[in-house]
Formats: sequence, structure tokens, C-alpha cells
Amino acid sequence: MAQPHLLASRLTLAFKAGGEAELLTGISTDIWDINGPHLNDFSYKTGPVLMAEARTCEHGIPVAVAQSAHCDFACEESRETTDAGVYRRIRFSAKAGEPYTVTLFAAVYTGIDDPEPGKLASVLCEKALTDGFSYCLFAHKKAWDEIWKHSAVELTGCEEAAQALNASLYHLHSIAPRHARALSIPARGLSGQTYKGAVFWDSEIFLFPVFVHTEPDLAKALLRYRIETLPGALKKASEYGFRGAFYPWESQEGGTEGCSDYNVTDVFTHRPVRTYFRDKQIHISGDIAYALWRYYEITGDRSLLRDGGAEVIMQCARFYLSRAHRRVDRDKVELLDVVGPDEYHERVNNNAFTNQMAAHCMSLALKLAEVFEDDPGVIEELVKKLDYEEDLKLIKEIAPKLHPAITQGAVVEQFDGYFQLEDCTLDTVRSRVLDEREYWGTNNGVAAHTRIIKQADVIAMMALFPELFSDETVERNWRFYEPRTEHGSSLSACMYALTACRINRPDLAWEYFMRTASIDFAGGGKHWAGDIYIGGTHPAANGGAWMIAVLGFAGLSVKNGEISLNPRLPKQIKSLRFPVTLKGKRVTVTVTEDGWNVKPDS
Amino acid sequence: MAQPHLLASRLTLAFKAGGEAELLTGISTDIWDINGPHLNDFSYKTGPVLMAEARTCEHGIPVAVAQSAHCDFACEESRETTDAGVYRRIRFSAKAGEPYTVTLFAAVYTGIDDPEPGKLASVLCEKALTDGFSYCLFAHKKAWDEIWKHSAVELTGCEEAAQALNASLYHLHSIAPRHARALSIPARGLSGQTYKGAVFWDSEIFLFPVFVHTEPDLAKALLRYRIETLPGALKKASEYGFRGAFYPWESQEGGTEGCSDYNVTDVFTHRPVRTYFRDKQIHISGDIAYALWRYYEITGDRSLLRDGGAEVIMQCARFYLSRAHRRVDRDKVELLDVVGPDEYHERVNNNAFTNQMAAHCMSLALKLAEVFEDDPGVIEELVKKLDYEEDLKLIKEIAPKLHPAITQGAVVEQFDGYFQLEDCTLDTVRSRVLDEREYWGTNNGVAAHTRIIKQADVIAMMALFPELFSDETVERNWRFYEPRTEHGSSLSACMYALTACRINRPDLAWEYFMRTASIDFAGGGKHWAGDIYIGGTHPAANGGAWMIAVLGFAGLSVKNGEISLNPRLPKQIKSLRFPVTLKGKRVTVTVTEDGWNVKPDS
Repeated sequence: MAQPHLLASRLTLAFKAGGEAELLTGISTDIWDINGPHLNDFSYKTGPVLMAEARTCEHGIPVAVAQSAHCDFACEESRETTDAGVYRRIRFSAKAGEPYTVTLFAAVYTGIDDPEPGKLASVLCEKALTDGFSYCLFAHKKAWDEIWKHSAVELTGCEEAAQALNASLYHLHSIAPRHARALSIPARGLSGQTYKGAVFWDSEIFLFPVFVHTEPDLAKALLRYRIETLPGALKKASEYGFRGAFYPWESQEGGTEGCSDYNVTDVFTHRPVRTYFRDKQIHISGDIAYALWRYYEITGDRSLLRDGGAEVIMQCARFYLSRAHRRVDRDKVELLDVVGPDEYHERVNNNAFTNQMAAHCMSLALKLAEVFEDDPGVIEELVKKLDYEEDLKLIKEIAPKLHPAITQGAVVEQFDGYFQLEDCTLDTVRSRVLDEREYWGTNNGVAAHTRIIKQADVIAMMALFPELFSDETVERNWRFYEPRTEHGSSLSACMYALTACRINRPDLAWEYFMRTASIDFAGGGKHWAGDIYIGGTHPAANGGAWMIAVLGFAGLSVKNGEISLNPRLPKQIKSLRFPVTLKGKRVTVTVTEDGWNVKPDS
Repeated sequence: MAQPHLLASRLTLAFKAGGEAELLTGISTDIWDINGPHLNDFSYKTGPVLMAEARTCEHGIPVAVAQSAHCDFACEESRETTDAGVYRRIRFSAKAGEPYTVTLFAAVYTGIDDPEPGKLASVLCEKALTDGFSYCLFAHKKAWDEIWKHSAVELTGCEEAAQALNASLYHLHSIAPRHARALSIPARGLSGQTYKGAVFWDSEIFLFPVFVHTEPDLAKALLRYRIETLPGALKKASEYGFRGAFYPWESQEGGTEGCSDYNVTDVFTHRPVRTYFRDKQIHISGDIAYALWRYYEITGDRSLLRDGGAEVIMQCARFYLSRAHRRVDRDKVELLDVVGPDEYHERVNNNAFTNQMAAHCMSLALKLAEVFEDDPGVIEELVKKLDYEEDLKLIKEIAPKLHPAITQGAVVEQFDGYFQLEDCTLDTVRSRVLDEREYWGTNNGVAAHTRIIKQADVIAMMALFPELFSDETVERNWRFYEPRTEHGSSLSACMYALTACRINRPDLAWEYFMRTASIDFAGGGKHWAGDIYIGGTHPAANGGAWMIAVLGFAGLSVKNGEISLNPRLPKQIKSLRFPVTLKGKRVTVTVTEDGWNVKPDS
């Protein structure tokens, strides 16, 4: 953790009988790549440090992997290069029962780090040899100690929950881009190639909260990634005939869209299935604006807005403006033909979540001027630069009309016509499944024409905009939607748990918490979508576990650096203790069955 | 044909050897019904006239079938009733070589004809016995002679074509609702239960033309059916949240919608497939308005407009007004999420055909006042009755904006984004078919994401609105769309043939003509859509055959009772001679390679 480019491992061997032993170690480049090969132009170097170098196929970025080794025993080493790797062969005479310890260091650099990544990798491997394994381990532990200091959650009352929660945080911190100024986290972290290393709304809605409360610079890095990839979002909007910023559903390097029009394979015909995540899941732009605003609200720091964030919000609002329609014969504004968080129902009209996200995004574009009231030039210049005068006027008119119709105490319809769909149970839908790998969505999936949904949708809206809904409304909607939700996404449980805490039912939240927190601890989760493997770790669920514990059970909320708490501890939890970083200072929050307190760290 | 309720048949038997013979004849009620039983409450009567009576399940309408018989030889007759029928058993001693003639009469009446259909059926069977078979045959032939006088097309040069064309007209006239004031023709005529006896746009676009030119009262009956079922169309629009008249895609008794949301069965999963014909194929209302206007244009008779036609046009225009959207940030009017004639591409935006039909319908609503310029009260009263003042203003503004963008000489894009679809050949799409019965459309059919279309769409628009497109434009579009069309509907060939004639390429039209004209003569056509049988006769193709011959090859056009001709005879045809009925008078048109003439019938 102290040196993210370095991998150190130590291996101690013992033999039952003596004899000549041989150990083969090195760098294999015979690797499986999702969607075809990622690297070409391989070259190898031997020497005390082994080296494999290659270039990425698309952008020609150099990638270098180096390896050094140390044996604490007498041996002979020869080196060899094959078609797909470079290796060292270590030969030694082994005695029965004796320990033989081998220390291996590997370093990885790419052309994004430096124009000559091979040199850096080689130097790092040599340096590690000199420093030695113990020093590396010491530095690593020290770095982790620092991370745990500002992030560990001490949960008493349930050992299993405590372990699962901190395992979630372990996964999360292992992949947090601390080395980069502007970078986000892929949907499966670094655990595999699933989802192609792309960045989803997971980053803003499920990962951003833990970081903004514990390590705001990391939260900033995630958002800076969106600010820096604004050109990709502008391009995508324009390709679809719209103005403003339409962020990619699966954001790749530089903000290009990595999502295909065909994300699922039909298990019956083995044909690719047209899905509409890429072109119709338009809430993504609003999700990003939402997080940018939350960063400002929680930290009180407006630098991110000034340094590109405001422009992102304005371009996202402009996108919704150009994506919205008005009925010709009445003053009704609509967002037509969208996909909400519940991806089992594609191409729907006026998805409540999406309309709310879009209306909120528009209202943020209007609020920016207030944020910079004392420095009006910031927004005035932007309005001029973006030729935004007319848009502001239109946003003022449109935003209030776009909010979903909310009657407090009533169930919010997920989208136009949802209530007319078949009202059957989850078991009924399951009983119609012919192949366990078949996809439930798209035009003819088993869920598509029923009220069964994949994941929180209306409930996600209520979790993200709690102030808009009365307790009674949240409760009625929870009771309506919960039994109709498959929780077919790792993003679902967190939203149901947060809203359960909101209505003072932490008992209902507990099961979701355990499911989310243990997703990569106990295994489980969904590994297939059609014929496509989607396994790996679940950073969004890891972030969600923290959200449920801290924002749900402890009831933490922060506004402009000020903490408030509204604990809803389930009976399984005796106490929660966790650090929060506010305006550069760390405080420790303790919540017990008897009350709570906040203490600044010494 | 003289008595549509009567069926007469004569059977002459001869035996190789003498002996006792037995003949069983009667009425079987053991019949196959599509979608479950249609009749219940069966009862039977025996006597000289056999009788089976029942009621329709849904509306309880009584249905009666009677049978009488006459034998020209000595015999013994006994009668019996079973669980599912009533029979007479005729016994006689037969001598070898002698002829034995049996004459059977059957009569059918329903509660729509009379409250006591059994009585009428019985009386008719008795009367037929008295009149005798020869008299019935004479009357039948006389009626057919009268029909042929005003409808037969004499085609010389190709005997096969002449036969096929008149076979088409035979099928058409056999099912024409001459007995009714307001009734239309189902998509499979009376040939079977496929399409549930429902009335489609076929009636207005493919059947109406032959009748309006040869037997205008029949054309009137077809349109009166739409006028009388306006309440059903108003109800359907309102059910979908729109104003005005949204006619059923499959119109049933009283104008209720017979089309299901699931019209196709997936051959791989045997699940019903959600199709969007019912809710999104909105051109149907415009098609009806189009025919109402053509009736007035061709006949000069405005009585139909006065007697409800104008109201239908206004309500259809109002429907499009309420179905149209405007982009919030620019003055673009759109018809979103529709299905055009090419049903392989569902849920598309701004289908050129649909937009043109809707814009045309709106422009007709504006033109109505001109038609009744000398009698302004007609429309003024309607405007008042329908509270239409504001709509008229809006229509004036919207109609011009809804027309598809047409650049003469360029290919019209079938809908937004069509040009971005995979451009592969029909053979490529065919090669992807895994099951010969699989449906090519819906979200994941083999054609859905390619440029391969089911049937004429842009070309249908050019056939129906010839004045909007230059010859060059029609030719370019023909050459573009023709190789991309599967002609998976019997409605396609006619449109391609008419436009081929338009661009003076009757050679290209010939193949379509033969295919259309011989569809029920030679067999062929598509018999399955998914797991569903769709065979039977093809009235729309029958009407299309006449259209190609008369409107295409002979180039007939009529405006306010005045004929003009622009013949485009293919080399296979030497001459065409056909009657046209104009303002109650019949003329005979003759077209030969050397010219044409029009002669009033003596």
C-alpha cells in the first residue's frame, strides 16, 4: 500500500525428503483478455531483473512488468525467454526439513506513469531487493494503519458483521486511486476484467459517500475524473442529437463510452440482445451533478465547483433540457424513452427517479449563482463562455415541471404505465425462468412486463432525496416495492436499508446490511447476465455497507462540516465507532444504545 | 350471390354395383374455434328442415343454421340429434349405373339480421326447396353477371395474369358486404378465423380503391363502418391518455380493439412476445382520414363527410395533436415511439410514413371548411360541438412542422436513426434465421437492427402521396428500399408496383403484379408468424392486384368524376379493358399499346 507499483511476496519451502529442487518463476504473458487481446508488441529482457514489455492495442501505451528475486540459500539460477514469458529457473540441493525462503518482487508501470515505464519498473525491483521484504512489509503496514485510522468502523455486538464490514472497506481501500489526481473506480475494482474496467454511476452514488466523509481528497479525485472527461460527455450527447453533457454509461479512458448496444447474449439463440443502457440510461449525468453538489454541501469546499464542477452541472442540465419534450397540446414536460435504475424495464416514459434526478440537476444549475454570490464573476463568465443565458431562462421554467408528481402518503409510480403491468410475485416470475442464465430484462425477459423490478428505483430516489418525502410516504413505498424487487444488482440492498433506517425499521435494514457487507466476504451474488460472466468484487456494495452502517444505523449527516446524528441501531449492534474527516480535521463518532458523541482526534 | 344467407349444393351419385345405400347429411357443430369456443347454448331441431341454434359467448347473439334437402328418387329418411349436430339419414336401394341426385340447401342467420334468426333460416330453406336448385343457380349467376359488369378487368396478352387478376376480384366480391349499410372486410375475408375477423388498415388503403372506382356504395359501407365505430376510437385514445380518435389496429364489432399486446409467440421459449402494433401503430387513424378524403375527391360526393366523416377526420387530427411532442429547447415537432407499416422496426421516432399521414390528416381538418364553403354551418357546428376552436389554431401551427423532411432527389430516412442500422442483405438476414417460423421483428428479431424491412414503408408513402415526390426522388428511393424489403406482408408488392409504374418501369412492376394477383390463385404467401397460423385468402392483395392493373398499368386517376389516364403497359400486356363507375354512371376504359379511350356504357 505504501508503493502501489510494487508487489512483494515471500515463500518458504520445506521438503519431506532431500534432493535436487527446481523452482520456476517469472512473468507469463499468456493471459486471458476479455473481448480479445489487449496487448501486443511483446518483448522480454533477462538479467537479475526480468522484464516483459508490451503495448496496449488501442492506444499503444507501453506497459512494463519487472521481477526481481532473492533466495536466502545457495542456488544456481538460469534465465530463459519463451514465446509468452520470461522466467528464472532456480536449482538447489534441498535437505529434508530445512526451510528455504524465496522473496519475489514485481513492479508494474505504464506509459501513463512515465514515458519509460520499463526503467521505473526495473529500478523499483532493484530498490525493493535492497530495501528487503521486511522493510517493504513495514511500510505497507504503516500505510494501512493510516488508512484504517481515518476509515475503520468498530462495530460491536456481532463479530460476523464487524468482519464483513471491514472486509468491505479493505476491498474498497485496496483499489482507491490514491496515486492519481483525477481517477475513478471501475465497477469490479481491480478484481477482474468484467465490465471492462469501466466507471459507472456506482462511483458517484455508492463509492463517493464513504470517501467524502473519510478521505475527501479521494472523493475529489473521483469527481475530477468526471470533470476531466466532460469532452467525452459532450461528444456523446451530440452524437445522439442532443446538447450538453451525456456521460457514458460505462466510462472508459478519456470519457469515451465503453457500453455496447448489445450487453447481453440471449441464452436460447446465442444472439446478442439489444439493450438500452448506453443510449437511454440518462440519469447518469444527473448522478454526477448530484455528487458534485453533495461534495460542496458536505465539505463546504467550493473549489471543485469552481474548477470545472459548475461547468459539468450546467452542461448536464443543458443535456436534460435538450432531451425533454413537451406535449404539443398541453403544458406537460416529459422525459421519454429512458431506462431507470431498474434495468428490467427498458424504454419507459417519465421514470420517477430519472425525472427527479434531471429536475434536481437543473435546479443545481440555477443555484450555482448563489454559491458564488460573493464572487459572481465565476458563474457569469461560465454563462458567457457556454452561451447559457437562454438555457437558464428555460431551465427556470422547465425544472419545476419535470419533477415527478408526488402525493405524500401514496405509492409513486415507477414510470408511466407501471401500475398497469402484471402484478405477480417474484416466485411466479422465477417459476417462468427456463434457463438459470437467462436475462430477465429486455423486451421479452420474464420480468419485463410485470411489476417485478431488478433493483431499487423509486426507493433509490427516496434514499437520495429524503427531504422530499414524508416518513409515511417512504414507508408505503417501501412496503409496496420491496416484495417486488429481485435485488438483482448489488446496488439495491443499500437503498432499501437506508430507507428502512429512515422509517425507524433498522430490523428490516439488517438483512440488507449483512447481504451487502458480506457480498465479497461470503461469496454469493449474481455471476452471470445471459452468457456473460459478471463476477468479481463489488465496490459499490462495499461502499454501500459503509453507507448503511454510518448513514443508516448511526444516522450521520453532515452539512457544511457540521455533524448531526439520528441513530437507528438494530438489536444486533451494541455500538458503532468510526472516524469522520471534516474540513481537514478528524473526529471520532461513537454511537451506543444509550446515545452518541463526537470527539475530535487528538 | 343473389341471396347471401343461402348455400345451395347439388350432388349426383352413381354406384358401380347395386345395393342398399345410406347417406348421412346435416349440421355438425363440432367446429374448431380460434382462441377457444365462440358459441354456446346449442340446441337442435329436427323435421323436414334441420336446425342448429346457438349463442355467441361474448354478446349472446343468437346464430341459426338450417338445412333442407330434396332427393329425386325414392328413399326413406330418418333424423337424429347427437351431442354436436343434427342429421338426416337417407336410405335407398341403389341400382348400378343409375344417377341419384340430392339437393341440399343451408341457410344462416344471426341476431344481427333479425331477433329470430331461426325462423328466417327455416323459411329460407323451405323457400329454396320450393324455388328449386335451378332457379337459385340462375339468380346467383345473374347477380354475378351484374358484379362482373361493373368490375371485370379484361386483360389480353397473358392468360395467366388475366385469370389471376379476375380470381382476385372473385375473392374480393365474394366477401364484399353488399348486404350491409356500414360494414368492412376482415383481413382474411371469410376464409378463416385468422386475425379474428378484424378490420385492419387494409380496408382503407388496399380494398377501398377498387370499390370507390367500381361500386362506390360499397366503398361508402366500408367507411361508414369507421364512422359508426368512432366511439371505440375515442375510447381507445382516452385509455392511452390521448384526445381524439385512435382507431383500433384490429377493429372488432363496434370498433373495439381486437389486437393483443402479444401478437407473436417466441419459437424458442414458446412465450408470448410483446409487440407494439396495438399501441404504437398510430398511422391507422390517418389512413382512415385519407380514405374519407379520397372518397370525396374521387366521387365529388360530400355526403359522407357531412354524415360523420368530417367528425372522424377532426377527431383523428386531434389525436395526432395530442400524440405529438415538441422538443423543449427547439421548435421541432415529433411523433415519438411509433410503429410504421414496416413492423420489423418497432418503437421508432418520426417514421416518415406516419408523420406524413398525421400531417396530412391535420391538413384535412383544416380543409373541411373549404369543402362546405357554401354551407359553412356544417363545420361551424362541428367545431362548436367538439370544442375544436383551439385545436384548429394549434393544427394550423403544427401540421406544417410534422411533415417529414423531404429533399427531392435524396433517399428519405424511414425513421430517425434508420441509416445507422446495419446495412446487410436480405440473404444475410435469412442466413441468421435459426427456425423458419421465427418472427423477424420485435426487439431481437433478425431484421430488427438491420435496414431490412418487412414491407413498403417510405415507398408506401410515395405511392399514397405521389404529388409530393419528383420522379427522380421516387426512383432513388425505390432503388434504395426495394432490395432491402422482405415483402413479408401481402401489402408490400402493390406499393412497389404502383411506384414502379410511376417511374415508367412497368417491367419492374410486373413481377409484383403477378405475385399479388396470384397469391390466392397459386398458393404461396407467408402462413406463419412465430407459432401462429396466419394463412387464408388475402383480400388486400386481391385489391392490390386491381390497383396495379388499373391505377398502375392503365394509369387511371379520377378527380371529382373526371378521368385521366397515363398508361404504362408492361410488354406482357397487350390491352386492358375495365369499367369505372362515376357519379352513378358506368364508363368503359380501354387501354392498348397504341392509346386509350373512355366510352360510356350504353
